[in-house]
Amino acid sequence: MRNFIYENPTKIIFGKDREKEVGKHTAEHGTKVLLHYGGGSIEKYGTYDAVVKSLEEAGIEYVELGGVKPNPRLELVKKGIDIVEKENIDFILAVGGGSVIDSAKTIAVGHYYDGDVWDFFESNAKIKQALAVGVVLTIPAAGSESSTSAVITKMEGEHKLSINSKHIRPQFAIMNPELTYTLPDYQTAAGAVDIMSHILERYFTKTKNVELTDRLCEAALKTMITNTPLVLEDNENYAARAEIMWTGSIAHNNLLDTGRIGDWASHGIEHELSALYDVAHGAGLAVILPAWMEYVYEHDLERFAQYAVRVWGVDPDFKDLKWTAEQGIKKTREFFKSIGMPLTLKELGVPGDRLEEMAAKVVAGKERGSIVKIDKEDVLNIYKSVLK
Amino acid sequence: MRNFIYENPTKIIFGKDREKEVGKHTAEHGTKVLLHYGGGSIEKYGTYDAVVKSLEEAGIEYVELGGVKPNPRLELVKKGIDIVEKENIDFILAVGGGSVIDSAKTIAVGHYYDGDVWDFFESNAKIKQALAVGVVLTIPAAGSESSTSAVITKMEGEHKLSINSKHIRPQFAIMNPELTYTLPDYQTAAGAVDIMSHILERYFTKTKNVELTDRLCEAALKTMITNTPLVLEDNENYAARAEIMWTGSIAHNNLLDTGRIGDWASHGIEHELSALYDVAHGAGLAVILPAWMEYVYEHDLERFAQYAVRVWGVDPDFKDLKWTAEQGIKKTREFFKSIGMPLTLKELGVPGDRLEEMAAKVVAGKERGSIVKIDKEDVLNIYKSVLK
Repeated sequence: MRNFIYENPTKIIFGKDREKEVGKHTAEHGTKVLLHYGGGSIEKYGTYDAVVKSLEEAGIEYVELGGVKPNPRLELVKKGIDIVEKENIDFILAVGGGSVIDSAKTIAVGHYYDGDVWDFFESNAKIKQALAVGVVLTIPAAGSESSTSAVITKMEGEHKLSINSKHIRPQFAIMNPELTYTLPDYQTAAGAVDIMSHILERYFTKTKNVELTDRLCEAALKTMITNTPLVLEDNENYAARAEIMWTGSIAHNNLLDTGRIGDWASHGIEHELSALYDVAHGAGLAVILPAWMEYVYEHDLERFAQYAVRVWGVDPDFKDLKWTAEQGIKKTREFFKSIGMPLTLKELGVPGDRLEEMAAKVVAGKERGSIVKIDKEDVLNIYKSVLK
Repeated sequence: MRNFIYENPTKIIFGKDREKEVGKHTAEHGTKVLLHYGGGSIEKYGTYDAVVKSLEEAGIEYVELGGVKPNPRLELVKKGIDIVEKENIDFILAVGGGSVIDSAKTIAVGHYYDGDVWDFFESNAKIKQALAVGVVLTIPAAGSESSTSAVITKMEGEHKLSINSKHIRPQFAIMNPELTYTLPDYQTAAGAVDIMSHILERYFTKTKNVELTDRLCEAALKTMITNTPLVLEDNENYAARAEIMWTGSIAHNNLLDTGRIGDWASHGIEHELSALYDVAHGAGLAVILPAWMEYVYEHDLERFAQYAVRVWGVDPDFKDLKWTAEQGIKKTREFFKSIGMPLTLKELGVPGDRLEEMAAKVVAGKERGSIVKIDKEDVLNIYKSVLK
């Protein structure tokens, strides 16, 4: 186990009807709020009304900025920064999923910076301060509700980059599993893959002696494997929705990688798909993650065999760890397929004509991954292995 | 899953040599420190010197108060409150295990209260404020380093009672597994049982649909079962010491009971043993916990069978869940015995002449437990079942 520092002060307010308390929690941090959200679904399903009512009851003023898109855009962030400045806003409330939260976090950072907020994403500036952010979560997937990161897309140049700072960790996250009942199946499944990949990218590590976090990861993965089919079968299965929603936060709040170093190559390889073709991050990961596993597993048969046995219940063949390890990858693919996810770039709707360019952007001059360092050639091979 | 609120802002600073950073972390919270500790072991093994050096380097003034005993006493707490007042102290640094931390927390609370600090323990006053507390942990057991509770013993009347408040959660906890190398085996084992019981008292619940937290509990229990024998075999096994130390915090930081209600009858039943006979809490639990399991398991065979199968690897007999459940209890006892823990009151050194009185104090007019409500008669039966 490596030395580590762990802290996660985000207050989780979990359960039925919790969004009705948002005013009270917001009032602990601010008086005038930027209410940030995406499309029409929060209005359609009553979340918007509940939030606004609660804010009003708590005497909180608010200014609205909707229109956040999946793979959130820098352009809207800049609009948000202007509004915050002009309206003297002191708190940002994100109502939505990871895209809305990441957009809110970036506005929060941009408020205290005179230059272009994109500087932070290109590591040309260091985050020293941010407005406080709160969350009403409606999509379990990105884990952004209690994380220190945000991912933003700059359309010009088709860049998708991230920032990381303790200053952007939300103050609170309100999580009512009922708000996820209306998610389309495809989005539920893509969210589940995103959650599983947050766990898996931590699970696959070269760090030795990490038994507790191994086992915690396995616990979280098994919970996803049981519950994702249940919510696809019955969208209003509260118990299963609750398991997924809470697992989604724990998957990405950094508890699961205390004392270990994750790999994260798959996330990098997928980001280019989302940046260029605007595909759902989780759907892209369903294609890339097993392809990456297949490409690297022989470098650590013991760990991949452990994954197969402990997570998927494969009976180990100790004389053939390779076979054992392969069963885990096979079961991962079968599971993703069973929940309606694509397994090839073709099924994802990504053509093969820009793979070179994408691979170059993934590595951007440096190697990726930690289990195995992979370069541009490797990324290209991984893309090609799942072309059709 | 039940509605819940979860937050745990304690900053964990984990790993080798971390105690040398204590000055830096303390400086974020205070300028004049009450340095609170127990007996001579921290001096003997160099922890005291490292801490004092780091405080001095950070320009922190400190006043010392040593002498905290296991099952920490109200009398020393009161002395601490006086020192804090007289010396204008603004931060309390606990260097030790749960007893030292709980004593520090109680001093922190007493500082802002004009009356007798014992009022809080008897629920005659409500905690509204406390001095900030930091921890250098030397004994993994109580989980007090990131918890909101403290247990104190009042010798007069032999009372052992607890308080619970977010105000007493430590600001930071420095955890270097090397500092636990010198623990006597008995104390290591008793600490392990305490940790396991913090998990088990959360695990045994009547709340339905708690898959994630069930599995996280099982992960933490399995980690303890693997690593406790390893550290008893080799006291300086860093990897195993690290697993136990981190599991000890996670066992009691409330993550494992998000959305569920634990039982806690065993803790209550044990506390009277410690209050009257000053036995190690974990050793008392090694006697009481399996006895409690045996007394209540027929009320929830499914859960006890799950425990046997998932935690202890028992092959389930689905036609005989009672048998399956019993194997888990049997294995728990065998494990406690294998690590040198007592299994009867006699082995613990507790005579049978005051059991009535103890049972009456455990329930104190109200029932205990949640899986099954138990009254004075039940507590007495549990004591008697493990008399010799």
